[in-house]
Amino acid sequence: MTSAPDDVLHLLRQRGADLSAADLDALMRGVAAAPEGLAGPEWIELIAPEASPDLTKALTAWRTQLTQADDGLEDSPAPASRLAALRAELKQRGLDGFVVPRVDEHQGEYVPRRSQRLAWLTGFSGSAGTAVVLADKAAIFVDGRYTLAVRSQVDTNAFVPHQVPEQLPDAWIAANLPKGGKLGYDPWLMTLDAFHRTEAAVQRAGGSLVAVGDNPVDAVWKDRPAAPLAPVLPHPDDFSGETSESKRKRIAAIVAAKGADVALLSAPDSIAWLLNVRGGDVPRTPFALGFALLHADGHVDLFMDRRKIPGRTVAWLGNAVTLAPPEELGSALDTLGKMEKRVLVEAATVPYWAASRLHAAGVTLVRDADPIALPKACKNAVELEGIRVAHRRDGAAVSKFLAWLDRESDAGKLREIEVSDRLQQMRQETGKLRDLSFDTISGAGPNGAIVHYRALPSTERPLEPGSLYLVDSGGQYRDGTTDITRTVGIGTPTPEMKDRFTRVLKGHIALAMARFPVGTTGSQLDTLARYALWQAGLDYDHGTGHGVGAYLSVHEGPHRISKVASTVALQPGMVVSNEPGYYKTGAYGIRIENLVAVKEAEIEGADRKYLEFETLTLAPIDLDCIDLGLMTAAEKAWLNAYHARVREVVEPQVDDATKAWLKTATRAI
Amino acid sequence: MTSAPDDVLHLLRQRGADLSAADLDALMRGVAAAPEGLAGPEWIELIAPEASPDLTKALTAWRTQLTQADDGLEDSPAPASRLAALRAELKQRGLDGFVVPRVDEHQGEYVPRRSQRLAWLTGFSGSAGTAVVLADKAAIFVDGRYTLAVRSQVDTNAFVPHQVPEQLPDAWIAANLPKGGKLGYDPWLMTLDAFHRTEAAVQRAGGSLVAVGDNPVDAVWKDRPAAPLAPVLPHPDDFSGETSESKRKRIAAIVAAKGADVALLSAPDSIAWLLNVRGGDVPRTPFALGFALLHADGHVDLFMDRRKIPGRTVAWLGNAVTLAPPEELGSALDTLGKMEKRVLVEAATVPYWAASRLHAAGVTLVRDADPIALPKACKNAVELEGIRVAHRRDGAAVSKFLAWLDRESDAGKLREIEVSDRLQQMRQETGKLRDLSFDTISGAGPNGAIVHYRALPSTERPLEPGSLYLVDSGGQYRDGTTDITRTVGIGTPTPEMKDRFTRVLKGHIALAMARFPVGTTGSQLDTLARYALWQAGLDYDHGTGHGVGAYLSVHEGPHRISKVASTVALQPGMVVSNEPGYYKTGAYGIRIENLVAVKEAEIEGADRKYLEFETLTLAPIDLDCIDLGLMTAAEKAWLNAYHARVREVVEPQVDDATKAWLKTATRAI
Repeated sequence: MTSAPDDVLHLLRQRGADLSAADLDALMRGVAAAPEGLAGPEWIELIAPEASPDLTKALTAWRTQLTQADDGLEDSPAPASRLAALRAELKQRGLDGFVVPRVDEHQGEYVPRRSQRLAWLTGFSGSAGTAVVLADKAAIFVDGRYTLAVRSQVDTNAFVPHQVPEQLPDAWIAANLPKGGKLGYDPWLMTLDAFHRTEAAVQRAGGSLVAVGDNPVDAVWKDRPAAPLAPVLPHPDDFSGETSESKRKRIAAIVAAKGADVALLSAPDSIAWLLNVRGGDVPRTPFALGFALLHADGHVDLFMDRRKIPGRTVAWLGNAVTLAPPEELGSALDTLGKMEKRVLVEAATVPYWAASRLHAAGVTLVRDADPIALPKACKNAVELEGIRVAHRRDGAAVSKFLAWLDRESDAGKLREIEVSDRLQQMRQETGKLRDLSFDTISGAGPNGAIVHYRALPSTERPLEPGSLYLVDSGGQYRDGTTDITRTVGIGTPTPEMKDRFTRVLKGHIALAMARFPVGTTGSQLDTLARYALWQAGLDYDHGTGHGVGAYLSVHEGPHRISKVASTVALQPGMVVSNEPGYYKTGAYGIRIENLVAVKEAEIEGADRKYLEFETLTLAPIDLDCIDLGLMTAAEKAWLNAYHARVREVVEPQVDDATKAWLKTATRAI
Repeated sequence: MTSAPDDVLHLLRQRGADLSAADLDALMRGVAAAPEGLAGPEWIELIAPEASPDLTKALTAWRTQLTQADDGLEDSPAPASRLAALRAELKQRGLDGFVVPRVDEHQGEYVPRRSQRLAWLTGFSGSAGTAVVLADKAAIFVDGRYTLAVRSQVDTNAFVPHQVPEQLPDAWIAANLPKGGKLGYDPWLMTLDAFHRTEAAVQRAGGSLVAVGDNPVDAVWKDRPAAPLAPVLPHPDDFSGETSESKRKRIAAIVAAKGADVALLSAPDSIAWLLNVRGGDVPRTPFALGFALLHADGHVDLFMDRRKIPGRTVAWLGNAVTLAPPEELGSALDTLGKMEKRVLVEAATVPYWAASRLHAAGVTLVRDADPIALPKACKNAVELEGIRVAHRRDGAAVSKFLAWLDRESDAGKLREIEVSDRLQQMRQETGKLRDLSFDTISGAGPNGAIVHYRALPSTERPLEPGSLYLVDSGGQYRDGTTDITRTVGIGTPTPEMKDRFTRVLKGHIALAMARFPVGTTGSQLDTLARYALWQAGLDYDHGTGHGVGAYLSVHEGPHRISKVASTVALQPGMVVSNEPGYYKTGAYGIRIENLVAVKEAEIEGADRKYLEFETLTLAPIDLDCIDLGLMTAAEKAWLNAYHARVREVVEPQVDDATKAWLKTATRAI
């Protein structure tokens, strides 16, 4: 165990700090457990506000030292000893099995390293999956994105891989749990909905489902990191466009209208939006982990580690937000029961731990969607203007990158990682980047056909002439979150590549130009993006669009554009991606992605209210990949107008070389 | 009471018939209660097989006389005395109210005159609606199609009109039924699903829902017609393409797979398809009213009036079909209970009478979709070939009509009814028409904008120069059912009319050309038909496509093309309409409708299985209504290819004048 370096202790004592060495050590371990990007330089504030340069330097050195500690998460496949240790632990507890999901208590896309139990136990690093461990067998369940990855990362003798949704953990449990067997689960990690499904499976097996008090994986994971402590900072009204007070009143009214007295909020992005704060506890997404209770009078109880909330943020939150340690959530739920409150929970995301505690306390559960999801999705005018500014900045960075790529790629020697590093550098040079909004997908040739590809030194390829290069990336800026995919021809693409590229582009344009009556859902528009591909017997196996937060998660609901039927209509202010694609396994991948915002359409003589999209993303689409013979006049007109806008916005922000390239790249066709 | 004419009795006695005069009279009243079209000349067989010309003539005269009897259904609004009589009847029975739906026991679109209780009580002739009668107030609930009609047909002082779905009968009942009030309902006319909704409403009012043994409307409707007795005739394998035995085995396996021993079939078109018979008890749809039980071994109990089943049909049905009188259905359901059977019912259509009797008998209900709906929707190769032949014939008739209309309409004197009569005559001249497949919609100018318009002498308009004329019609042929809408410019349409017509046509073509992966639902395709209209801020408030039967109902499920999310994927063999439209109230209506069949698409290099549409309907689309500047090259190519096919098929079937017209009407653009 590392303890505080002498120079840090010395400098802190000079300031008169009264933190004990043990508390300081714990605090620094939490700070070091948060990803560096989003924490920003402000993490120093959590230890020593207004620290001297010397103290800052000493603390930074200590942090760097702590982040180099081995938490065991890089081992892939994981050593067999871990599974053995877990089985021993289960046996000691009288359990015949245990469920290890990839999620944490908040069911989000990113989880802190401390909660990456599945990765530690198996070596699997994907963003979704579940393992089920029995005494004599174990299985791991992943979706089609990770069918190949799971076999390279996991010891498949120890964990037999299964593909969902064809093979579900519930069915496997029902078939494999011994009669009378006790299957353990962590009630913090299982939602109310999932609990009922799992319980039914266990009952089919003639066994029982047993909640554990503390997670047995944690008991055997010796080097488990601390809970992350990234500073929680105000998100000013200039960015949010609405005070937290106004939001709290507005959402409280929604909660009351649903017949509830209180809403339990477990989604960190909902809490961040509601309280106008941002954090950095997980990579790529600027929120702080915690839970909250929103009362019908607009008051909020925030259950969050006080150590990550600097004094200025406490003041910013104000009197209507009561801070409490996370450990006190349970007793607060008990109190709601005593007061005979009706509590709104979202069954698909609320931890069973909380739902069952509320139930036991006598609370009436009102099951409904997170009341913040829809209001958060509908950006106000200030948020939209921030998002536009972020996209103009981001578009210039991406354009510089594309110009550089055009100059440098001819030699055929560039490789995926250096190229995505260059793109990140361009964004960093804006001076405004807080973090990437997700891990960049940088795929050359056949790697572009792997939809969720991540370039590694062992997998990366050169950008070869006659191939396509796909890059999907985004930035987190305080004024907005970006997400853009461009596919670039390296040298001369083949006629087939151009045909496919053009069909993807036609789908992109059909969606971008669409006007649609109020009430239309994303699933009604999805086919527009696929039609040109379908006509050639081609399709893509992912959604066409996901919601995007305002300096929040790059993937958010409740709306989306997809084949799956949706009941959520698109509404003004919603930001959504427009990203059709085409993937030829072993050959190339194509995706063209812009973010768009839903807005009211002004159409003279319209028979009702119509909506349309405003394209936010501004960077050239590779004209050299287009088969002009496939494009209609209306499609060409859209693309020319788009490129004219790109040039107008980007040109003043870039160097002469990029300007020259831009002129060609945005030429009218 | 009319009794048998002497000449009929005399001729029958000569043949040695042993029917009593009373039985003969009852039989003839049933025969006369069936619509004439679909019963065909075969109705004579029900009374006197191989009747002499004299007997045929005498019976026909008698039938004509009986059909002229006044059943009170033409009175609109209905006399106030009827409502008063019903209220007296209710009071006598101790009821505080009664629900009068438009439906019959089979929940179909067409109901026999005998079951048109809502029309008799109120005067309302629409195809959907419900009245609720209380002691001191009454309300009638209709949808947006009938908002205007209900006010002209019904005494709105007696029945206050309400529009569904904004105002629902259940909410009205909950608000208006007195506390402790007894609301009567006919359990034959209320489905299992509807029962639960109505019961909840009655409970909210603090009242009770009381099933009546016999319908109190029937008790006060003195001149109520008999139950229709149209001949049930074999539908030969040349048309059906699959023996009833094969179908029964196939569906029985589906029922078994759903975990049921027996299926209760209450949809007459399902029964007609299963048993390869056709009838004529209601207008426009060639089925026979009845119920059936399909057992897991493929055996069928058919509950149907024996008098409408000629001997040759009994033989056709064979030993695996047991005939029983409708009155015996109840005891048969009781027997299923005694045998502890599991019975599949469709909760959205099964009469509550049957569901509750099954429940009381101890049967386990398996709630699922009608097991015949999907197999019936997927036409086999023989059915498809029959449907194609029917469409070639029908297309020639429609083309002759359109040529005539083009010649005659210039004078601006033609009126809606004579024009639709002419169209019917063209179909009759094919010598194959059994009936229209629905009441023709013949709308000139502003009447074309009324989506469910029916021309009456009091409403019809002339086809004036500078206007549009919309005609939506179809035929029932033994080999297939047709449904086509054409919109024709009279004189020179305005530029706005051409713009709208072209946008509707673009939607029609986008859908007609669509290829889509297996698994795609109609709701995923719906937007293709609307996109060009949406771009101009225009839409239409009806679905884009409905399923069509094979010499069965012109509207059938379970698939459709509509904004409403669907879980039923389009499958090869399904026939569906492609009918986008545009309606400018008070000005004009446009609809372009062809039927199409789903088929597998052969696409070289396709990444999975794709489907596409084969257009079945063959008649020219008015080229003079098209704004060519709005059409893409691909759209023009589709239209030119379609018109070339129309000409190729229609030309050999028509007169010289039509041939000459056809040449121009199908010219390449």
